[in-house]
Amino acid sequence: MIHRVLASEMPAHVGETVQVCGWLHRRRELKNVTFLILRDRSGLTQAVLPGAVAEQLRDIPEETVLSFVGTVTANEQAPGGVEVVAPASGPQVELLSTPAETPPLDIYRPSVTASLPTILDGAPVALRHPLLNAPFQITAASIAGFRTALDALNFTEIHTPKIVGSATESGANVFALDWFGRKAYLAQSPQFFKQAMVGVFERVYETGPVFRAEPSDTARHLAQYTSLDAELGFITDHRDVMAVVREALAGMVTTVAERAPAAVDLLGVKLPTVPDQIPEIHFADAMKMLGEDEPDLSPANERDLSHWALREFGSEFLFVTGYPMTKRPFYTHAQPDRPNYSNSFDLIFRGLELITGGQRLHRYEDYIAALTARGEPTNAYEGYLANFKHGMPPHGGFALGLERWTMRLTEADNLRRTALFPRDLHRLTP
Amino acid sequence: MIHRVLASEMPAHVGETVQVCGWLHRRRELKNVTFLILRDRSGLTQAVLPGAVAEQLRDIPEETVLSFVGTVTANEQAPGGVEVVAPASGPQVELLSTPAETPPLDIYRPSVTASLPTILDGAPVALRHPLLNAPFQITAASIAGFRTALDALNFTEIHTPKIVGSATESGANVFALDWFGRKAYLAQSPQFFKQAMVGVFERVYETGPVFRAEPSDTARHLAQYTSLDAELGFITDHRDVMAVVREALAGMVTTVAERAPAAVDLLGVKLPTVPDQIPEIHFADAMKMLGEDEPDLSPANERDLSHWALREFGSEFLFVTGYPMTKRPFYTHAQPDRPNYSNSFDLIFRGLELITGGQRLHRYEDYIAALTARGEPTNAYEGYLANFKHGMPPHGGFALGLERWTMRLTEADNLRRTALFPRDLHRLTP
Repeated sequence: MIHRVLASEMPAHVGETVQVCGWLHRRRELKNVTFLILRDRSGLTQAVLPGAVAEQLRDIPEETVLSFVGTVTANEQAPGGVEVVAPASGPQVELLSTPAETPPLDIYRPSVTASLPTILDGAPVALRHPLLNAPFQITAASIAGFRTALDALNFTEIHTPKIVGSATESGANVFALDWFGRKAYLAQSPQFFKQAMVGVFERVYETGPVFRAEPSDTARHLAQYTSLDAELGFITDHRDVMAVVREALAGMVTTVAERAPAAVDLLGVKLPTVPDQIPEIHFADAMKMLGEDEPDLSPANERDLSHWALREFGSEFLFVTGYPMTKRPFYTHAQPDRPNYSNSFDLIFRGLELITGGQRLHRYEDYIAALTARGEPTNAYEGYLANFKHGMPPHGGFALGLERWTMRLTEADNLRRTALFPRDLHRLTP
Repeated sequence: MIHRVLASEMPAHVGETVQVCGWLHRRRELKNVTFLILRDRSGLTQAVLPGAVAEQLRDIPEETVLSFVGTVTANEQAPGGVEVVAPASGPQVELLSTPAETPPLDIYRPSVTASLPTILDGAPVALRHPLLNAPFQITAASIAGFRTALDALNFTEIHTPKIVGSATESGANVFALDWFGRKAYLAQSPQFFKQAMVGVFERVYETGPVFRAEPSDTARHLAQYTSLDAELGFITDHRDVMAVVREALAGMVTTVAERAPAAVDLLGVKLPTVPDQIPEIHFADAMKMLGEDEPDLSPANERDLSHWALREFGSEFLFVTGYPMTKRPFYTHAQPDRPNYSNSFDLIFRGLELITGGQRLHRYEDYIAALTARGEPTNAYEGYLANFKHGMPPHGGFALGLERWTMRLTEADNLRRTALFPRDLHRLTP
């Protein structure tokens, strides 16, 4: 019985007759011999055919799926130091697909010159290019690391509704849908559900899609993205949440290094070191240092602060704490000694805001006071607010945009390079 | 510095002064002493107060959140064999929430008599009852086990769009939404995306929400559920997919046993044994055995087959293979030697269909022929079908409904007991 062997396993099978299956990545024809480079999920294998027989395969285009049986032979010139040589009795090549049409870009070329729209339009095929799918291997490892870190901290994974009855959290930028004849909305975050579940499990996380009807067309916004959300009870203040953020990030970086080393190498990703204690600066101090007088940080401010943290502390991560209450959602807990500021934070990673979090209000009457002070009606939040009448501990949490994380890690120029089939103002296919 | 200790860790801290935090589960007042039972995520702790001081706490209702500082003392009568006794200088009790309102059901009672609507309406608080949240601990462990099993088999986790441009897969039962002024739909499954990604990663899985606008109001349908989807390339036929199903199920059962033993015990769940080889029966043979002549299995048929598999093979799992092509989606691969039947399967677990899967078509011309034979227009599937022009290997996959799995495992009478905040024909809140 001849078994399929992956490209990466080939060096361990020298001398054996094996089956190699994959996409025809590239063909090189010399006078008396043809080399077929086959690509599988683990890498490339060089298959060698006597010239005469290769004739039969001359019209088979790249990206056609083939199966090839031959003997694994050491060859220092070949990728991985081995190649698979067709037996003397003639090669056993089988076409597993019909001959492939021309792909939207040449998968075999070492670099990618195609434009972003070309790549996105042809994503199912374009993503076969190793440079284009490597980010998604990093994404898969990152989310696994996030879950592992939170599992170790006794968090419970939850799955909450993506369809909600009222457009609560921000009111704007929600997608409306027809729910059996009634109007409903896509959830912008699991915020209310995860807070409610602190009352049940104390510590919860969810990794799932969230939806923002962003009418702006920027390189760092998507209408659907994957949000890594966590929430925990019995905290003293936002610093307990920041400690969990630190563990989550450390888990993500570690798991990327363990599970996606090839993607890291290929893209030249420099994995950051997560310090035991991520440095932090209060918003007011940051503004003073920057010589600014605004209620929010500009992207340029975030970059400047990031550079400062790197110079001052050698850290690529920086917490900015204490954002003004006016810039935070109504459920944010104020800073007890400076009530215009909040017990909240953003995490800036290499100049980009990656995580937002903080302590939430946990008493019913505080919610009523907060909404009233903002001139917002409380009845729109009735079901949500009712939870806080039933005994909720001090709690807080955070949310991390998975695609943004990978974007920053891989230094991609557009968030659409780290979403498999991005959805935005214009794009609903493929 | 006095640290918080969880109920489950208390026996290891006898003699120490600790902080115990949690919900006031129950209070028992004797003549000279008051017992406060505090509940945290790990279990119950008995706190003991001298009678005089308890007076101050007399009006504090159950479910209020408290912090209590005292000395851990061995007491065989107490839960876990220890209790926390207030110091002689007077107990240090702190209210972490305002006094709680009456919950929708008594959380402290050992059994639950509340009706399902009462539970669902009051879910954020009702789920604090250990019997009601135990299923979700089993769910969390199950999905972790699924991912671990597929990671070990070299699958890549993916995240695909939940909003799609056309209502393809079945046409019926889709939710329509307003996408920046255009009509779009919620995805009923990641079917097309996961197939496309076989062309990139060979083996992929996704764990995420899917949406079905089911107009029927049954105990085993929801409008949103969590689908565990997998797809793999370079298969011989559906049996290679069934082998992966077997590994996924084994991973789920193992991880439930490891991570959720308390929930398993509390609910009296009997974890199934996953046989090395799950027994299978062809649809035609099943029909013959049952003396039926229908193109599909009824729920009663599924139960009968399940009993048969248990008697015959001692297995609580059974694959039914070869479903008639007429009852399967157009992308289903026919059984080569009996083309009215398919290379597909259902997995029946304890009488309930839990998983559907099979081999898919992988050649463009086969898709065109299949759609034409069904009298379906091919242009609606244009973007999807284009993938198959670019070299796709033989592939197949499966989908498992996570809530159904937990429902069957816990013998719940309604799927709504295993969805945190179920969405159905009538229910859009909480």
